[in-house]
Amino acid sequence: MKKNVIVGQSGGPTAVINASLYGVVYEALNREDACGTVYGMINGIEGFLNGKVMDMEPLERSGELELIKTTPGSYLGSCRYKLPEDLDDGVYPKLFGRLEEYGIGYFFYIGGNDSMDTVSKLSRYAAKYGSDIRFIGIPKTIDNDLVHTDHTPGYGSAAKYVASTVREISLDASVYDNKKSVTIVEVMGRHAGWLTAAGALARKFDGDNPLLIYLPETAFDTERFLKDVESALEKTPNVVVCISEGINDGKGTFICELASSVGVDTFGHKMLTGSGKYLENLVKDRLGVKVRSVELNVCQRCSSAMLSGTDQKEAIASGAYGVKRAIEGETGKMVAFSRLPGEDYRTDYVLEDVNAICNQEKTVPAEWITGRGSDVSREFTAYALPLIQGTVKVPEKDGLPLFAYRR
Amino acid sequence: MKKNVIVGQSGGPTAVINASLYGVVYEALNREDACGTVYGMINGIEGFLNGKVMDMEPLERSGELELIKTTPGSYLGSCRYKLPEDLDDGVYPKLFGRLEEYGIGYFFYIGGNDSMDTVSKLSRYAAKYGSDIRFIGIPKTIDNDLVHTDHTPGYGSAAKYVASTVREISLDASVYDNKKSVTIVEVMGRHAGWLTAAGALARKFDGDNPLLIYLPETAFDTERFLKDVESALEKTPNVVVCISEGINDGKGTFICELASSVGVDTFGHKMLTGSGKYLENLVKDRLGVKVRSVELNVCQRCSSAMLSGTDQKEAIASGAYGVKRAIEGETGKMVAFSRLPGEDYRTDYVLEDVNAICNQEKTVPAEWITGRGSDVSREFTAYALPLIQGTVKVPEKDGLPLFAYRR
Repeated sequence: MKKNVIVGQSGGPTAVINASLYGVVYEALNREDACGTVYGMINGIEGFLNGKVMDMEPLERSGELELIKTTPGSYLGSCRYKLPEDLDDGVYPKLFGRLEEYGIGYFFYIGGNDSMDTVSKLSRYAAKYGSDIRFIGIPKTIDNDLVHTDHTPGYGSAAKYVASTVREISLDASVYDNKKSVTIVEVMGRHAGWLTAAGALARKFDGDNPLLIYLPETAFDTERFLKDVESALEKTPNVVVCISEGINDGKGTFICELASSVGVDTFGHKMLTGSGKYLENLVKDRLGVKVRSVELNVCQRCSSAMLSGTDQKEAIASGAYGVKRAIEGETGKMVAFSRLPGEDYRTDYVLEDVNAICNQEKTVPAEWITGRGSDVSREFTAYALPLIQGTVKVPEKDGLPLFAYRR
Repeated sequence: MKKNVIVGQSGGPTAVINASLYGVVYEALNREDACGTVYGMINGIEGFLNGKVMDMEPLERSGELELIKTTPGSYLGSCRYKLPEDLDDGVYPKLFGRLEEYGIGYFFYIGGNDSMDTVSKLSRYAAKYGSDIRFIGIPKTIDNDLVHTDHTPGYGSAAKYVASTVREISLDASVYDNKKSVTIVEVMGRHAGWLTAAGALARKFDGDNPLLIYLPETAFDTERFLKDVESALEKTPNVVVCISEGINDGKGTFICELASSVGVDTFGHKMLTGSGKYLENLVKDRLGVKVRSVELNVCQRCSSAMLSGTDQKEAIASGAYGVKRAIEGETGKMVAFSRLPGEDYRTDYVLEDVNAICNQEKTVPAEWITGRGSDVSREFTAYALPLIQGTVKVPEKDGLPLFAYRR
């Protein structure tokens, strides 16, 4: 008997979270043997609770679904809504009532570890109360911090953006090579340094910028940092440094929190600033060289210009794979990637227990962090390089990328 | 009789300043009837004074010259060096001695209005002391603020970057459409708002983000700004605002200076990095909504991912045109663009008196600024749209853009 399908997106957007949406929708629309209507939930589980859904099939007919494949952001909207720990909370019967109302048999949720928490709870509730609805998580995060998977869709494109942008910033920073300068690039990643480490891929040759890379996995020492920068300035006049937004002293204090003296506006309000800005001021003050900080900000998760072909392909395939396995009867699982041994990059799609994934964080292995916490090893670049391969042609109109959006 | 050629780059880099370099070098190498050795000066006129030059011809043989066409930054390096006003200063005989030493007959300088000041002084010195060396300026600036030209190479690519990035940021900012938010995007441009105005091109439909755009040409009133944001929040939950880094109160105070701790750069210039951050704090404090500021920073002038085909083609052609006209006998001129009337975009390349261009600034016409200083008119978008057309394929290696660089 056919069952209807619902798919949602949750957490922060990435450049390929919509490619995963495409994968789910495309596969479900093509599995007429098992799937009835394919719904999208607007603003995740939170919107769904309020009955905000849309029929996805018209998007295929209008051609909009094709556009979704290369559109950054979350087409369906997102939410940050945590389901209660207590499965006897009243929200669960309400949610399952909604699912019944729409005749849902297959539920797909695209997101990071918080979203996997939602999948975990819904599947456990279903098991407890005998619902046969199948719940599958489709992974997504630029942070690459999900456990039990080689990597996560969203990371490859963000890493490609960081690597190419750091390469461009390094060229820009080196035009006045008769004057010493330091450029600090702040990259996203509060607890895991995977994305910051991708700055290493920017190097055009051994000894090229970025000369220094600091991840949140290693305790950050500002005095050692200043010494590292001084040594680097002896090698090249223009030093580029990549830091994670989450660099910290190893005792729970973020470097950006040291910025008590940063600034007060005319109304006497404290101006909040990032780690990059803090270190910019520190270097200026202590080393007296020209210094600039660049915060890559949301562009690293929403740039369509640097979509990785590999990442996009895998995002689509992971969505489609989730549908296939749900139809086969799986539930309470997340789609994961298992890298096969060998010189050429190949991965298997597998399912992992979502309960073992949610609320966990995978950080960069200590043995991949070198130079007393100021660089990453060749093992890291060998790991990351396959994930940024391939380009994606984004449709254009009037000289600009053409994107899908809900009317 | 053949004369040698020298070309230099000066001021801040752009995405196509190397395309102009390519245009000069390619044309000069192909004019064997008039041109001997083609030299590049390293770090502009300042490096040249110290005898830092390179022979450009080997770059053509090695294929590096082709790569230069799509490489951001200044391949030859740059400088910010102002020649003395007094033409009887001792630096002039020294410079002309160097030019004689290298047998230079044609001198090309790629840059903005400061660089045109260099071309002006050198050509006036040559006229005064009977030198027959020809001095031609090749325009470059993302600010688009040179007078006597319809537009300037570098602007089209930067405008395309700003428009596409603001479009992506708007998608990213709208994923939580159940919560009100404000995103402030800070764009380069100290005195001229051309680049900030390009944010208007990001709109996918009438009434789309960015809902508000503030240029430095209009006095910025923080109270009116807060009212504008409040009104915009009534129309849509997620408001995106573009501001120029140079927004000011109309009486000489930059908005970022309202934050009490503002640094001074090595030239003694006040650092303009905080207008977005200042307004972020103001909106948070006064309107109590979620707010974020994004500084596009150097990426807007060094991103190769958003090269405008039109801009790159014109940058190359303007370099080549300068060589052609110098050989014909012109000196003391800058290559300029004259837009032809008619529906289709076409331009003539012309020469303008460099003395009328240097040290001037072209700002956005007052009649193109609408909404009491919070938007731009359709005349602006009609002007800017042709300049961002066309894409450029950047050579790739290992999943990243491949760039030329001096060894």
